Amino acid sequence: MLVLFALPVESLRGKQSASNPHHCEKRGNKERQLWRFTMALKTPLCDLLACEYPIMNAPMRDLGGPRLAAAVSNAGGFGVIQKQYDTPELFREHVKQTKALTERPFGASFLLSFPYEELLQVCFDEGVPYVSFYWGDIPPVIIERCHQHGVKVGQQVGTVADAVECKEAGVDIIIAQGEEAGGHVIGNVSTMVLVPAVVEAVKPVPVLAAGGIADARGVVAALALGAQGVVLGTRFLATPESDAHDLYKEKLLSASELDTHKSLLWGAAWPDAPHRVLRTGFVEAHSGTEEEGQKPAPPDAPTIGTRIVGGVKKEIKPFQGYTVDQTVEGEMDKLCYFAGQSVGMINELKPAGDIVRELVDGARRLIHGELLAFVP
Amino acid sequence: MLVLFALPVESLRGKQSASNPHHCEKRGNKERQLWRFTMALKTPLCDLLACEYPIMNAPMRDLGGPRLAAAVSNAGGFGVIQKQYDTPELFREHVKQTKALTERPFGASFLLSFPYEELLQVCFDEGVPYVSFYWGDIPPVIIERCHQHGVKVGQQVGTVADAVECKEAGVDIIIAQGEEAGGHVIGNVSTMVLVPAVVEAVKPVPVLAAGGIADARGVVAALALGAQGVVLGTRFLATPESDAHDLYKEKLLSASELDTHKSLLWGAAWPDAPHRVLRTGFVEAHSGTEEEGQKPAPPDAPTIGTRIVGGVKKEIKPFQGYTVDQTVEGEMDKLCYFAGQSVGMINELKPAGDIVRELVDGARRLIHGELLAFVP
Repeated sequence: MLVLFALPVESLRGKQSASNPHHCEKRGNKERQLWRFTMALKTPLCDLLACEYPIMNAPMRDLGGPRLAAAVSNAGGFGVIQKQYDTPELFREHVKQTKALTERPFGASFLLSFPYEELLQVCFDEGVPYVSFYWGDIPPVIIERCHQHGVKVGQQVGTVADAVECKEAGVDIIIAQGEEAGGHVIGNVSTMVLVPAVVEAVKPVPVLAAGGIADARGVVAALALGAQGVVLGTRFLATPESDAHDLYKEKLLSASELDTHKSLLWGAAWPDAPHRVLRTGFVEAHSGTEEEGQKPAPPDAPTIGTRIVGGVKKEIKPFQGYTVDQTVEGEMDKLCYFAGQSVGMINELKPAGDIVRELVDGARRLIHGELLAFVP
Repeated sequence: MLVLFALPVESLRGKQSASNPHHCEKRGNKERQLWRFTMALKTPLCDLLACEYPIMNAPMRDLGGPRLAAAVSNAGGFGVIQKQYDTPELFREHVKQTKALTERPFGASFLLSFPYEELLQVCFDEGVPYVSFYWGDIPPVIIERCHQHGVKVGQQVGTVADAVECKEAGVDIIIAQGEEAGGHVIGNVSTMVLVPAVVEAVKPVPVLAAGGIADARGVVAALALGAQGVVLGTRFLATPESDAHDLYKEKLLSASELDTHKSLLWGAAWPDAPHRVLRTGFVEAHSGTEEEGQKPAPPDAPTIGTRIVGGVKKEIKPFQGYTVDQTVEGEMDKLCYFAGQSVGMINELKPAGDIVRELVDGARRLIHGELLAFVP
């Protein structure tokens, strides 16, 4: 009965916040705190990462840089950069840029298949409080070094067995990535099944859910599955702050839930690593020939495009899966557009901060409204 | 504040119910009603189907017969039988058997790729209040005929576009089946993505979520995604009431979340219809040769097993995907064991009624406990 009575009050609060999510920023400290209180979506992970909301952007290489990470952190989420193709100097510049854009904590992410040790040192130097890893086993000495520097360690996995190994290795946060996720996808199990299984297997280690989440419904579903937070990739790609090419963003907005494909096609620079991409005409035309792309581009391979890294123009060869950021030019139809199945739910570009606030507000309203009404 | 205060009370209720879910059955009417009230998990779908809880067993051909459907309905869920391979007489017998085992409503399900009109007439004759269809378009005249008989019509889909067609055709309930589901799987999109997209596209038509759900976490996740109820297959297969072969049940209990495979292998009786099965040694050995199985077994094909239908022994030829029920004998390793990815979460046989009660009780506790605590 008490719960029923409380319902309209909460719903109202939710609606007020939703109608003007920016309003608080013009208010005084006290009112701001009140708004923050009514907007809370807090799990133990928030304390671990010192953020307000357990909402993270996925590492997306050159598609998500300082602007995106800072926008996510500034809104109370937790931003992550992944600039692993750069030199340590360039990486340090990206970290500094992010720090210049936000006073809040953010993280960095590294692929274990490529060099990262020098970049990790930059994280230590610059006080980045969280680093996550993917695609391989983190050497124990690396975890130890992170912990010595007070840095929390995350790892993304696609199986329960790998999650258990992470727990045993001392990983602080485990990201369970469902097969519906965009970009490189290490597993074959859906978010709906993987998350509760991983949560059960590694408790009390906190688990983040990744894959198929693009709105408040997905956030609450992930929490129901036992996750302490969420990682969104495709949703944060369709923002003004992401560094995805405009053409890429247009493609995201027009794609349906059927328009992705888990492929090996772009394997020239990273072989045998399945990745979910938009099912473009190029992808369809190369269906069944994916094995060919699993070796480095031959020296005489044509240049199909260029990208700019640290002010330097670099060539793109066929089936090199470089991210199509704003600096890319060339035969755009032959390039690789990473996206998750949740792309079908994304119909407009939206500032990253608005996304965070809408997820939090929507999750609150969903739990206090619809869900509670089902279990009076 | 009110919500916070209400929390312990609800949690306590939940725990009491959980510790002895059968207790109510020994109580008087008044106490029973009180228990029912505190155990409520109710969505508008419950009124539509005249059941207590929006929990349905998946149609599973000869694996789920009258005993399973009746057990689900008796526990307050909604049981479904699918005995389409039988003659109308045999089908009528199954319907009558189910009616003898429960006074509560239950439904029947038909594959549109095989004859069903005579069986549908049996449903009308016997007062079955719900029929669902799968794999194709329901002819408008069939929907009309069902409605004339006061029968609600469901259809299972794997895409938003098909869901919208169903809505336009007058289907009453849409089942959104994610790719992680077991048995025949019509789509390529995960439950996490498909359900909210379908819910949004067909509202206010109620949507059931199918695929990847085996526990209370999955139920609440499905509700969060906007579903008004859930359909569980693999979980209800691992029950004493299911007609799956004992060997089959053993296989389910020992399989992990990685042990399923979406295949075309058993296509001899139903070609080009992808199905998720346990990844047995036989499945692995035939990886890549699936195209061969997409035509009827030749007359000289060996008999690899037998099954009994209506007291008559029938032969099983290679790559005929008959369900391995308790009557099956033969080369068991060459047969087809349908299962969804959620098989990894299933570690013990459990009576179907206990499953329903645990899902309801667990969902209540999850919403009133964990989830509310995240959004104070």
